[in-house]
Amino acid sequence: LISKIGLIGCGTVGSGLLELLEKRADYIAGKYGVSFRLLFTTDAAKGTAFSKDGLNPRALLEILEKGGSIDASPKNTPNDLASLLEEAKPDIICEAAPTNYKTGEPGMGIITATLARGVNVVTCSKGALALDMAGLKGLAASKGVSLRFESSVMSGTPLISLVRGPMAGCEISKAEGILNGTTNFILTKMESGMDYSEALAEATRLGYAEADPTGDVEGFDAAVKVCILSAEFFGTPMRLEDVRRTGITGVTSEDIKRAAAGGGRIKLIAGVKKEGDSVTGYVSPETVGLDNPLASAPGATNAINITTDNLGVVTITGPGAGKMETAQGLLSDMLNVARGQL
Amino acid sequence: LISKIGLIGCGTVGSGLLELLEKRADYIAGKYGVSFRLLFTTDAAKGTAFSKDGLNPRALLEILEKGGSIDASPKNTPNDLASLLEEAKPDIICEAAPTNYKTGEPGMGIITATLARGVNVVTCSKGALALDMAGLKGLAASKGVSLRFESSVMSGTPLISLVRGPMAGCEISKAEGILNGTTNFILTKMESGMDYSEALAEATRLGYAEADPTGDVEGFDAAVKVCILSAEFFGTPMRLEDVRRTGITGVTSEDIKRAAAGGGRIKLIAGVKKEGDSVTGYVSPETVGLDNPLASAPGATNAINITTDNLGVVTITGPGAGKMETAQGLLSDMLNVARGQL
Repeated sequence: LISKIGLIGCGTVGSGLLELLEKRADYIAGKYGVSFRLLFTTDAAKGTAFSKDGLNPRALLEILEKGGSIDASPKNTPNDLASLLEEAKPDIICEAAPTNYKTGEPGMGIITATLARGVNVVTCSKGALALDMAGLKGLAASKGVSLRFESSVMSGTPLISLVRGPMAGCEISKAEGILNGTTNFILTKMESGMDYSEALAEATRLGYAEADPTGDVEGFDAAVKVCILSAEFFGTPMRLEDVRRTGITGVTSEDIKRAAAGGGRIKLIAGVKKEGDSVTGYVSPETVGLDNPLASAPGATNAINITTDNLGVVTITGPGAGKMETAQGLLSDMLNVARGQL
Repeated sequence: LISKIGLIGCGTVGSGLLELLEKRADYIAGKYGVSFRLLFTTDAAKGTAFSKDGLNPRALLEILEKGGSIDASPKNTPNDLASLLEEAKPDIICEAAPTNYKTGEPGMGIITATLARGVNVVTCSKGALALDMAGLKGLAASKGVSLRFESSVMSGTPLISLVRGPMAGCEISKAEGILNGTTNFILTKMESGMDYSEALAEATRLGYAEADPTGDVEGFDAAVKVCILSAEFFGTPMRLEDVRRTGITGVTSEDIKRAAAGGGRIKLIAGVKKEGDSVTGYVSPETVGLDNPLASAPGATNAINITTDNLGVVTITGPGAGKMETAQGLLSDMLNVARGQL
């Protein structure tokens, strides 16, 4: 089975996907019977490459590593999305552009235009999903195509597709856990003796935190994921401002020590729960006991407790961030679209 | 979508499935668009009930709760499997008969006969799967039908289908964890001060351990699951006697205290790993640190660390036993067969 794909956005995550497409092609073909053919890749800053015969991921990576433009195609190569979709007729668009929580762009425009043309979409763009998952899912359904977004929450650690497939038949009443790697890294460093500002500096130095860390440390990133989970698990749209939100900037070393003395750990807990017809979302630092699986998720690890009717609590723990980890989430979605999975 | 099913075995797990089919029918129809119609149920000890219009799960449960025979059908009702398959033409057979690790029966015969007739099979029978998964999968493939067995390991906590679908693209090198609820219950009780024999007595009293606890406490049950995982994850058949196996009968209260003093917990760790072309399986009591997610799985909870290329270690924690939990594993498999999932 050959699956024709287009990649939009070749920053960190997009490059990770190109690496997987190159290094894991034989494994994927052997194990899943799927060969991905990359027809185009386009990036707002780095240009557009297009080939009907398929692009070579390694050649693209070499250009990207040198910081060059991938715009190496003939003059008449289409470089707007509509023309690319028209010319390439891809089976799947993989959308990995940076995301804006307020506008949902550029993901919103890209995903909408792609679904509208009847093309499957795999995306990690939190912003668009948090803003209007119902609209995007409705569009996908009306066109009979898939919209998948495993890597939008907990990077490639399965959560969305875990609940859709392997947990089918379970009704979820609550899902709460550690959904932001940066703050969990900072809190873990504080347990080993750093104060908040030292731990934040370390997170910035290692690339976990951005120059402006507000989105992570004030809990916005976790809250966006709560909006996604509310829409996905309960079919209930939730606006970012409706998530009760406290970040970690007020957590002190004394708080960390007090929690440890009581046999616990402070974690930034993000969750969504349904009680009757009411769905609420929340993000706040909480002390969790060591018997809670969330306690044993260190550093950039994420973990979530999923409370169900038939299985009690199921917990999944795994990476919450990272180039290859997020790319793996896109890859699993692409494989599942190619294989006709829900 | 109406999916016609036959249930083989209505002991504890089979009754649990009947409960789910009754109580969750509306939820399942609404959420997944699937209505299961139970055409027959047959049990070696309790007889056979068959109706082309569909049996009422509640009525069956009432008979079973009173310990009665379900053999309430007209005289000419077929009661052997071949006739039932011929008459009922089910889409899915759900096989929940007791399992024998040495012979694989009665599961082996039931599963083989059903697949051979081109009917999908959902089963929790560890014995047959551990003995010849390759043969059974080959038969299913040759007939173009599904063979699913989520609840054979960790009851309904997703593992098999988690790796097949949501983790597609990941290559697994190792999977190890707590795969037997009874021994984990005993070890947890020993942490709270009981000695081994007291904890075993408590496990027996509460129904976690059988009258003859050998299968659990000597690690046979965990080893059977290791055989299943070797075949499923690595395509490598493994015989029960090839699993390096130590049970928990030699674990003393002193061992438990020594582990706790060192900041750890003793768990019966069952695993399978691939190094080069070599796949090895093992079951033995080991001390795990509190930073290992396996440490925070108490009582009958199971947990497994799945080591992969693209995601590092992913851990799933959830119930490892139980009537409704195992039934939920069968239900998710049935829903995924009905929806054409892999």
